[in-house]
Amino acid sequence: MARARTLADGVLGTTSPNPPVGAVVLASDGAVVGEGATAPPGGPHAEVTALARAGDRARGSTVVVTLEPCAHTGRTGPCTDALIAAGVSRVVVAVPEPTELADGGAERLREAGIDVELGVQRAEAETGALAGWLTGARERRPFVVWKAAATLDGRVAAADGSSRWITGAAARAEVHRLRATCDAVVVGSGTVLADDPQLTVRDADGRPAARQPLRVVADRRGRVPATARVLDDAAPTHVSRATDPAALLAELFDRDVRRALLEGGPALAAAFLRGGLVDEILLHLAPKLLGAGPSLVGDLGIPSIGGALTLEIVDVTPLSGDVQLRLRPTRHTGGRQHVDGGS
Amino acid sequence: MARARTLADGVLGTTSPNPPVGAVVLASDGAVVGEGATAPPGGPHAEVTALARAGDRARGSTVVVTLEPCAHTGRTGPCTDALIAAGVSRVVVAVPEPTELADGGAERLREAGIDVELGVQRAEAETGALAGWLTGARERRPFVVWKAAATLDGRVAAADGSSRWITGAAARAEVHRLRATCDAVVVGSGTVLADDPQLTVRDADGRPAARQPLRVVADRRGRVPATARVLDDAAPTHVSRATDPAALLAELFDRDVRRALLEGGPALAAAFLRGGLVDEILLHLAPKLLGAGPSLVGDLGIPSIGGALTLEIVDVTPLSGDVQLRLRPTRHTGGRQHVDGGS
Repeated sequence: MARARTLADGVLGTTSPNPPVGAVVLASDGAVVGEGATAPPGGPHAEVTALARAGDRARGSTVVVTLEPCAHTGRTGPCTDALIAAGVSRVVVAVPEPTELADGGAERLREAGIDVELGVQRAEAETGALAGWLTGARERRPFVVWKAAATLDGRVAAADGSSRWITGAAARAEVHRLRATCDAVVVGSGTVLADDPQLTVRDADGRPAARQPLRVVADRRGRVPATARVLDDAAPTHVSRATDPAALLAELFDRDVRRALLEGGPALAAAFLRGGLVDEILLHLAPKLLGAGPSLVGDLGIPSIGGALTLEIVDVTPLSGDVQLRLRPTRHTGGRQHVDGGS
Repeated sequence: MARARTLADGVLGTTSPNPPVGAVVLASDGAVVGEGATAPPGGPHAEVTALARAGDRARGSTVVVTLEPCAHTGRTGPCTDALIAAGVSRVVVAVPEPTELADGGAERLREAGIDVELGVQRAEAETGALAGWLTGARERRPFVVWKAAATLDGRVAAADGSSRWITGAAARAEVHRLRATCDAVVVGSGTVLADDPQLTVRDADGRPAARQPLRVVADRRGRVPATARVLDDAAPTHVSRATDPAALLAELFDRDVRRALLEGGPALAAAFLRGGLVDEILLHLAPKLLGAGPSLVGDLGIPSIGGALTLEIVDVTPLSGDVQLRLRPTRHTGGRQHVDGGS
């Protein structure tokens, strides 16, 4: 199952609106005879690819897959039919299918005499590559990763507004890797006006990646000029007039965005946090002190320490001289908030 | 040598104005036959204790010690005489003696026919327990550890000033362990007025430790009331009217303080940082966001990102739900600054 999760991680950001799934075919002696992960929309699902690779060796095998195989026909035929046709003996699943549309996969397999086990290492799979897609299936909005870089005193820029570069090259390269795993990169009009970023996925030499996430600018007040780099033809761009983060996320969900990277400034981050609409935080901390300048996050409406927005540290990773903290909110503040704002 | 350093770590904070030193006596077959660390002032030095424990087995042995043995008579006789009298064959030293007063230890040993090796794992010893004492010997001021606790957005308190507690019990217990390794705990009058802390070393049940560091309040303007808890009889207290951090540290050096813990608020921390008078930083980061409230450090006079005070991360340690970063400045800002200020 760990291998299946790794296969799914490898296609994160390329499958939306389909889930990033990994599948492994094991012969009766435990040997791996086929592997697969979800192809881009219209291409084969993980199980189908893994079975094709296994060929005749799929007969009597065990198929390990991170999500319950679908029983419905979308752009591709149902995976359950492929598993039955291949003559597999057993299917081991991490996460049961959460949507009604595709429900019934396990039942259909069992009716065909296949042994099905559901919920194996379910928590690991649910918090991994599938997290964004599951959020979409359950809440009908994209999974939101907020990425920010700050000094130890929580400054995202110096007193004069300069912010290039707070973190080192390793942390900045990590941001491009992160963008590549997302369907959209979201900033506010304030960030566009202050930094004029291009928001594309580039490698260390500045070369753009073949696949680019949708660039999204929350521009409630129509402040973004036509000359902004984010409007160039390097990647598609959506300038939204949505008035709050929930409305913005609804627009993105309708555009098949299942995993969005929030890269905006303190005001936009505060609006998402106040709305309870941040699912994961990647914070790059530079071992620096500035003593002045804008803070990581704008006003959250929290008056005293007891009301602090509390997070859980998922992992801490050194990034050359910097350090990356991955966190998840454990308690949200409530209420819908206005989107947009300064950087 | 690693064992000798560990012995020295164990007496950190109990030996000032003497250095915390560790010594190990090894028989010719490599067996450890004696160990020792510096006793409190007036008591035996590390080598003398280690030799006493080895007894006759010290003859022909190798003595491994973190600092060059002294050749002068202070409150105790010179360690070189004890090593010569015990008939040791070889002395392995990490850090050569930096002061002129005690200089000549290695020379005296060599004159007595003992093989002396200097500088073995010197960097490890210099940045370990000896760091504070070496700073004192070289700069005639205490080594300064700045300890602070903040949220991820760099807030040391909420908008209403409440700050209990930002970090969890594990981080707060670590602060008491840290205080026990220091000769003095320093705050500004602002912290006394805002939080009225007792600044003693206590265990998890609130019981005070037998040995308490000197409590120091930087109170240039004479604002601390006689009723402040820091003036109770639980530990000695020095209220200083020094006008800048360097003058305050000079007062503390004269009181035999070699390792001071700075626990003041943003203004006092900024004054020490601007003066280049912080040698180590222990930052406890709580996975929380506040969005408002006072920041970790006051104005450092840094206008743009290029002027940021840069640090080096020494280590990152999880502390239950919080995370501890140990850092050292790699570039100081210059200039003497006023001491004192708000919390």
